[in-house]
Amino acid sequence: MPEIRQNPATKEWVIVATERARRPEEFVKPAKKSRVPRFSTKCPFCPGHEDQTPPEIASNRNARGAWSLRVVPNRFPALVPEGDSLREEDHDLFRKMPGVGRHEVIIETPLHNASFGRIADEKALEIVSAYHNRYRQLSADKRFKLVTIFRNNGREAGTSLEHPHSQIVATPVVPLHIRHRLEEATRFYDDNGACVFCTIIDRERKEKKRVVMEGDGFIVIEPFASRSPFETWILPLAHRATFGVATPEELAGFARTLNRVLGKFVEGLRDPAYNMVIQTAPQSEEDEDYFHWHVKIFPRMTTPAGFELGTGVYINTVLPEAAADFLR
Amino acid sequence: MPEIRQNPATKEWVIVATERARRPEEFVKPAKKSRVPRFSTKCPFCPGHEDQTPPEIASNRNARGAWSLRVVPNRFPALVPEGDSLREEDHDLFRKMPGVGRHEVIIETPLHNASFGRIADEKALEIVSAYHNRYRQLSADKRFKLVTIFRNNGREAGTSLEHPHSQIVATPVVPLHIRHRLEEATRFYDDNGACVFCTIIDRERKEKKRVVMEGDGFIVIEPFASRSPFETWILPLAHRATFGVATPEELAGFARTLNRVLGKFVEGLRDPAYNMVIQTAPQSEEDEDYFHWHVKIFPRMTTPAGFELGTGVYINTVLPEAAADFLR
Repeated sequence: MPEIRQNPATKEWVIVATERARRPEEFVKPAKKSRVPRFSTKCPFCPGHEDQTPPEIASNRNARGAWSLRVVPNRFPALVPEGDSLREEDHDLFRKMPGVGRHEVIIETPLHNASFGRIADEKALEIVSAYHNRYRQLSADKRFKLVTIFRNNGREAGTSLEHPHSQIVATPVVPLHIRHRLEEATRFYDDNGACVFCTIIDRERKEKKRVVMEGDGFIVIEPFASRSPFETWILPLAHRATFGVATPEELAGFARTLNRVLGKFVEGLRDPAYNMVIQTAPQSEEDEDYFHWHVKIFPRMTTPAGFELGTGVYINTVLPEAAADFLR
Repeated sequence: MPEIRQNPATKEWVIVATERARRPEEFVKPAKKSRVPRFSTKCPFCPGHEDQTPPEIASNRNARGAWSLRVVPNRFPALVPEGDSLREEDHDLFRKMPGVGRHEVIIETPLHNASFGRIADEKALEIVSAYHNRYRQLSADKRFKLVTIFRNNGREAGTSLEHPHSQIVATPVVPLHIRHRLEEATRFYDDNGACVFCTIIDRERKEKKRVVMEGDGFIVIEPFASRSPFETWILPLAHRATFGVATPEELAGFARTLNRVLGKFVEGLRDPAYNMVIQTAPQSEEDEDYFHWHVKIFPRMTTPAGFELGTGVYINTVLPEAAADFLR
């Protein structure tokens, strides 16, 4: 019998269709035929090709000038930094505003074939620290209402570039989906006097069956209403509304946890395509009691189609409890 | 300069990134190498393979018993018809309910290689009438709160079967996304005393630049805040809250319009993968003034990635005005 589950944080329904369930093992990708090279002559992110990216925003370099990480503007930015963020014709039926914002790329490593999940924890911390620095910097610009950090891995996950990289977008609006999530979290807080994410963490630690791992101040779960096979959340145990207020110790714990989780994907599921995103309250709400920053990872194992696009209801064919068991 | 546009019906923001814009012509698919056969020995929907589907729910047959259209349960249903739709442990943090509902497939034609968009208008009406009959039948079951009709075309759009078919899912809950849309439409009605969709239609008829075609009681537009290149809406000119209350004349006009629009996709863009979905108010709200049933078609030209998944904000690289111009 299929089951319809509700995500307590968002109130979204998910159909877990056990009738059409596949065992977690069936999602393991076939072994790759070709090896990814350490360096690619065609890759704009490989060392020596620095002139193929727009001028650098920041970088980590050694005494001889060799870089280990670079931050550059996206060459085809969704949003541009110049201008103000005033809306035009605010009372018109069709509202629009200039596309002011930032769209940056973090080139994580000079190595074309590095794989987040198989890197040193120190390297993971370097990347996560770059996320945090750029987040803090962009959040300080009052034109920007939300800073979103994400990582697309693999062609099916929408990336055209193989070289390990992450992206940051600062938007002059708080997206509607984020607004709805903040509203639901506020409502839960009003009803229960507790953060819904703290409440989920307590319950998951008791039930254990959806916990992938815990340690370093973080918990990793397959959420109760996972929208797709192996959807994975990483949550800090300590309540923090925004990614911006994470402490240095928390960043180190986050880096180790993220590296271990992605390592499980690389090893256990043979490097599936995935999207990773840091979900945070807007930085202006950094002291809020009701939201709790966290990371979502969506492996691209199935293709959302007309039903999902039309209703927002996802059909998941793997029980989150089975997925957690497999990843453990 | 990119532009951030808001959908007046849903309040969702979309980034139209003109900096990275591609011309509409660039989305035309390369010509196909292989032809699709009229009949496939491996296809469970081809004539003679009726025993490969679960027992038929309905069919149209001629005097000799040959069928032109069949309705069958989905072999791997997301929801199952038995049981009631009561929620378990309603006050628990983790809410769930049995997956009671219907999941049906409409096999539109015996011809494996037919292409909606290049069929006779009478055939289109036969298919649309089957949508309507099944919608009415399933809506009469009080356990089901929403009936969603959709069509996935092409592998990138999430379908594994090439044979022309549509699907219907009846859910025991109103999905959160639909609730939010009904709420926004209600708010617009409260503020303006008019249906937001009727208001959009009036404005689009005046501005003309996003109208693909009009006639037969329907208007076809590229919406102001299109989420992806060539997102297309078909709206009845007459205000109707639900698909269930469409009149026979309206169904005939809808069938002709849908066939013409899909024909433009097949010819102009060389049969791209797409998802089509009928968006309707729940049938229990058939007399409402604020919602207006319509069809959305999403060609799968780009891959939503981490930013879209995390924020719900889509980045569209083609101006809707340019897409409308191309399709006209």
